[in-house]
Amino acid sequence: MTASSVDLLIKPRWLLPIVPRHAVLEEHALAVSDGEIVAMGPAAELEATLDATRILALPDQVLMPGLINAHTHSAMSLLRGIGDDLPLEQWLNDRMWPVEGALADADFVALGTDLALAEMIRGGTTCANDMYFFPDVAARRAIAQGFRLAVGMIVVDFPTRWAQTSDEYFQRGMAVHDEFRQEPLITTMLAAHAPYTVGDDNLSRICMLSNQLDLKVHIHLHETAVEVENSRRDLGLRPFDRVRKLGLVNENLLAVHMTQLEPNEITACAEAGVSVLHCPESNLKLASGLCPVEALRQAGVNVALGTDGAASNNDLDMFGELRTAALIGKAAADSAEAVPAWYALEMATINGAKALGLDENIGSLEVGKRADLISFSMDGPELMPLFDVVSQLVYAGNRRQVRNVWVDGEQLLMDGSMTRMDLPALKSRVETTSLTIQNILDQEPTE
Amino acid sequence: MTASSVDLLIKPRWLLPIVPRHAVLEEHALAVSDGEIVAMGPAAELEATLDATRILALPDQVLMPGLINAHTHSAMSLLRGIGDDLPLEQWLNDRMWPVEGALADADFVALGTDLALAEMIRGGTTCANDMYFFPDVAARRAIAQGFRLAVGMIVVDFPTRWAQTSDEYFQRGMAVHDEFRQEPLITTMLAAHAPYTVGDDNLSRICMLSNQLDLKVHIHLHETAVEVENSRRDLGLRPFDRVRKLGLVNENLLAVHMTQLEPNEITACAEAGVSVLHCPESNLKLASGLCPVEALRQAGVNVALGTDGAASNNDLDMFGELRTAALIGKAAADSAEAVPAWYALEMATINGAKALGLDENIGSLEVGKRADLISFSMDGPELMPLFDVVSQLVYAGNRRQVRNVWVDGEQLLMDGSMTRMDLPALKSRVETTSLTIQNILDQEPTE
Repeated sequence: MTASSVDLLIKPRWLLPIVPRHAVLEEHALAVSDGEIVAMGPAAELEATLDATRILALPDQVLMPGLINAHTHSAMSLLRGIGDDLPLEQWLNDRMWPVEGALADADFVALGTDLALAEMIRGGTTCANDMYFFPDVAARRAIAQGFRLAVGMIVVDFPTRWAQTSDEYFQRGMAVHDEFRQEPLITTMLAAHAPYTVGDDNLSRICMLSNQLDLKVHIHLHETAVEVENSRRDLGLRPFDRVRKLGLVNENLLAVHMTQLEPNEITACAEAGVSVLHCPESNLKLASGLCPVEALRQAGVNVALGTDGAASNNDLDMFGELRTAALIGKAAADSAEAVPAWYALEMATINGAKALGLDENIGSLEVGKRADLISFSMDGPELMPLFDVVSQLVYAGNRRQVRNVWVDGEQLLMDGSMTRMDLPALKSRVETTSLTIQNILDQEPTE
Repeated sequence: MTASSVDLLIKPRWLLPIVPRHAVLEEHALAVSDGEIVAMGPAAELEATLDATRILALPDQVLMPGLINAHTHSAMSLLRGIGDDLPLEQWLNDRMWPVEGALADADFVALGTDLALAEMIRGGTTCANDMYFFPDVAARRAIAQGFRLAVGMIVVDFPTRWAQTSDEYFQRGMAVHDEFRQEPLITTMLAAHAPYTVGDDNLSRICMLSNQLDLKVHIHLHETAVEVENSRRDLGLRPFDRVRKLGLVNENLLAVHMTQLEPNEITACAEAGVSVLHCPESNLKLASGLCPVEALRQAGVNVALGTDGAASNNDLDMFGELRTAALIGKAAADSAEAVPAWYALEMATINGAKALGLDENIGSLEVGKRADLISFSMDGPELMPLFDVVSQLVYAGNRRQVRNVWVDGEQLLMDGSMTRMDLPALKSRVETTSLTIQNILDQEPTE
């Protein structure tokens, strides 16, 4: 029997494939060739049958799928910390929109996206679902950095530096869709900012395009009680009922936040195959309410996890986020057994892949999937003793324990160091831009 | 003018004294001699007037008071992760007490305390308030490691390896009090486990000793709705009313958890000078309820912050805890303006010092206080850009950014490395003990 050649054979202490559920494999290895997971099995067997160009032993590390940040606004990392301890409406109207109106051009998006990618890669995130202006710029930065990104073709009913009219939003959006159709790292989808910023005409147009092109629709929905109440008062309908009437409640809908849900809405989400994109830390920080994750899980709804933007979080830390999701999910359900540790990991991996329509390629370690992998060190007194790898990752884990990251088989983090990103140059550019932001903030009237 | 001699002059990028509130000083320095903060002021001035044995420049770091973990069970770090996703009663009865009954002797406490101290020191905690068996052993480990520890003279109405009868609990407790009376790093106080494990006789005896010796009384109180309801059903009183009738509601009371509070109880705490020791992550993980921190703050109650034990958290990460406190405090109050960032830092520093009766010595950076200091690096893409140091520490901070730690002027962490603790030896001892724990767990019937 001749040995097959592979690019890389990784021998971790633990292998956590996520699928099948609860599996924690020891003395197992994983092989990668051409960016694909080509073999998984007992380490001795793989070493005997494979001829690996590189063998990487990770004796105190867990190998697992890269985390998927199912909802973020990458470029807003440049606005980290400019609007703390404020409710959503004030945060948006007094802080975010004035600064974005003055600054959010292509250069801003390029720099902010690089900053977000650096943070996400160092913290074990290998894929994100982005909603922001200049999605083409964000996609190009992701390709340059080797990161897997879904970008939303943003629509909002007011002019921005990205587009002046509704027609221009749709034209530029569809141009983005065409430009990146063949890019293996990029997924495009439709993105309506929110029911309170996009009218029925544009929502209907988004629905039509979603049906014609089989595209996902990314939208903030039922983020706050105020949003729901205003819609009832002004339109006689809850936002969910409104988007349902317009035809958007189907398996392409990615509904972000969903902190206000009636039982019949949970059932409707389950029946229609809607994915809920849960952002617990943003919801807590803006006092938006608690998403009923356990009830959604019990109903069979696919719940994925996102950090939201760093301006409302204030980080893009998916390990922190999945821990918060496990903790706050228990408070929301009034049960310590709700949102168990393994489910928190699923939300951050395979459920994210399902939401983005990428679960044939990523979200778990399975032969034939793309090699989006991370390794996590279990060394240090903070992680002693170790009785249960999943418990340790979720309830005692820290993103600073991430040592290695691969996307599509390319190693982007090597023993804690970034392989592609020039961090000192990034720092210098961010510092320059932060002075401009500070000037704008100094001119804004704030109460 | 001749220069005064000092042991150490620290020149950080930012100096965050906590007192006065909101102060963030730049181009300032702090001087230490004989374990005391002897000078603070403009760096140029201090450099000109002081002759320092060692000058330490920290050009991208914040210098601030060490964090105070106001409620923990240090030795339970050895039980990290053995009882996840379970409600409090099941967690206590089926997991903690069987293992502790079999194992919690002096050796267990010595090892568990060392493990906890390693984690706390690396994460920027310089003082903790411990409640566990063998408080003398914990105190000796703290002295050996140079850590500041308050230990509770534990009382519980059932036999343990520490004491068999009530009289023995009190005798051993008072012996601990006598032994450590002159130790500058150790504070002793009375500790009743909880109203549901300590009867009126012992609570009255604790009250009498507290009054006679002016000792604090550390007690779990109103942790869950079940605790309150059982007390009403069995004794006709809420636990708070019961301890009030017994005379314990005064400025020596340290009430841990307090997730179930009526407005009149909040008023009573404020009027009596009770300190509330808030443990948000433990409360979330055990689905115990949400402590109304903002209401307590508005009423003028001193709220300090604790991690609880690593068996119910599962870490002793005070930076993580203060962030969770700021986030969940907004949900509990239904207001994004509740529990602002600066208040989260106060809970973790000066309020902890006040609770423990140590605010004349620690909890802020002021001339004349002991040098319990930490420095925190603001370097890295996770903390860019930087508009507000307090926001960054609270909402984007990570304990792995802590670079230096001093307790009573002794440096315990130097640029990320521990100066006293032998971590490889600790790891080996913890691994041996974890095998014993695993054997006991394997024998326990669990549903």
